[in-house]
Amino acid sequence: MTQPESVNAAAGPGRELPDVSALVVGVLGGTGDQGRGLAYRLAQAGQQVVIGSRTAERAVAAAEEIGLGVRGADNAACARESDVVIVAVPWDGHAETLTALRAELAGKIVVDCVNPLGFDKQGAYALQVPEGSAAQQAAALLPDSRVTAAFHHLSAVLLQDASLERIDTDVLVLGEERAATDVVQALAERIPGMRGVFAGRLRNAHQVEGLVANLISVNRRYKAHAGLRITDI
Amino acid sequence: MTQPESVNAAAGPGRELPDVSALVVGVLGGTGDQGRGLAYRLAQAGQQVVIGSRTAERAVAAAEEIGLGVRGADNAACARESDVVIVAVPWDGHAETLTALRAELAGKIVVDCVNPLGFDKQGAYALQVPEGSAAQQAAALLPDSRVTAAFHHLSAVLLQDASLERIDTDVLVLGEERAATDVVQALAERIPGMRGVFAGRLRNAHQVEGLVANLISVNRRYKAHAGLRITDI
Repeated sequence: MTQPESVNAAAGPGRELPDVSALVVGVLGGTGDQGRGLAYRLAQAGQQVVIGSRTAERAVAAAEEIGLGVRGADNAACARESDVVIVAVPWDGHAETLTALRAELAGKIVVDCVNPLGFDKQGAYALQVPEGSAAQQAAALLPDSRVTAAFHHLSAVLLQDASLERIDTDVLVLGEERAATDVVQALAERIPGMRGVFAGRLRNAHQVEGLVANLISVNRRYKAHAGLRITDI
Repeated sequence: MTQPESVNAAAGPGRELPDVSALVVGVLGGTGDQGRGLAYRLAQAGQQVVIGSRTAERAVAAAEEIGLGVRGADNAACARESDVVIVAVPWDGHAETLTALRAELAGKIVVDCVNPLGFDKQGAYALQVPEGSAAQQAAALLPDSRVTAAFHHLSAVLLQDASLERIDTDVLVLGEERAATDVVQALAERIPGMRGVFAGRLRNAHQVEGLVANLISVNRRYKAHAGLRITDI
């Protein structure tokens, strides 16, 4: 049975993940809370990070605020200069942003972390997506990219809280290609406290994205910044 | 930030859950692996348990195998005799079973733990459900019951393994009515190692049910019996 110790182990059993320390990571939507938080954590872990935004000026401003060698560029330049590109744009701009970057993202590992959610008086709820999920939409729009999905359940508040040295949580990583999901798992594990856990193919991304609505309910009820751990691995 | 200790705390912060020790718990589909495992754990925790099945004979046989005072009855009698009724039938028989028990389940707390999944060569995937989720289907078919959803992510193997004294995992509980979800959380916490965590309304049940497909992927990759913990509560 799972003991607390194993929950906090740096890596799961028998896994050898690739060395990703030399990869340049782009963060599209890096001026938003989630993107900014991920850029900060990855840069702090020693990763080269490029923040992308619609205008280079906003991206440069956000990058300078973070420091740690983070650069800023417009989305197209961010995609071109990066080996791995995290998509952290609002769901509203998801399809449009990716459609415009098809050429720049060709051949790259794309990490979709977008959660299609609606909000009303009763809180958050998962939206229906024609393609099934944000990640499947990305895969449909980017046939020449290696599309994965990850980083959905991280609290933007915790990511940006510089007083926290660790964020003890698991990052569920989905995708069709083992080499690509291994890279994303390794990237997650650069951040102290995080484990990258393979959690299925993109056809099972909808519920992973939608679960953020449940975590928002948890946060409301318990005044928390909830995350996930997978037990028994 | 979450420490390993808090992950294993018996109850979340500031929560006062009702005493459910005197409630009779029915388990429809209690002859299946999941139902049998839940019946065993709840009976072991001191709860009065009635297993339901289509035929009383099968239910009685399963109950005698478990021992611990568990009784067996046909589904209708099981529903009538219980205060809280766990629905652990196969998805295929879900609507039919509940439709037939509408009168017997009136006024009761119903706990749906059914996961509508499909399987093919690539593994498991979440099925589309016209009502949105199994739990919402239950709520639509049982307008006079207090429908909740919980117990989706428990490994039937671990539940039935008598050598395990604890199962360290969280039970996500969904529902519209606080008094009902509190009872279900309290019921989950009768089982050593488990926490009952409120995780939203029934409209957000689909992704909780579907996440079992991801846990099956985790189990395949890591040779595990994966479960969930919510961090920071």
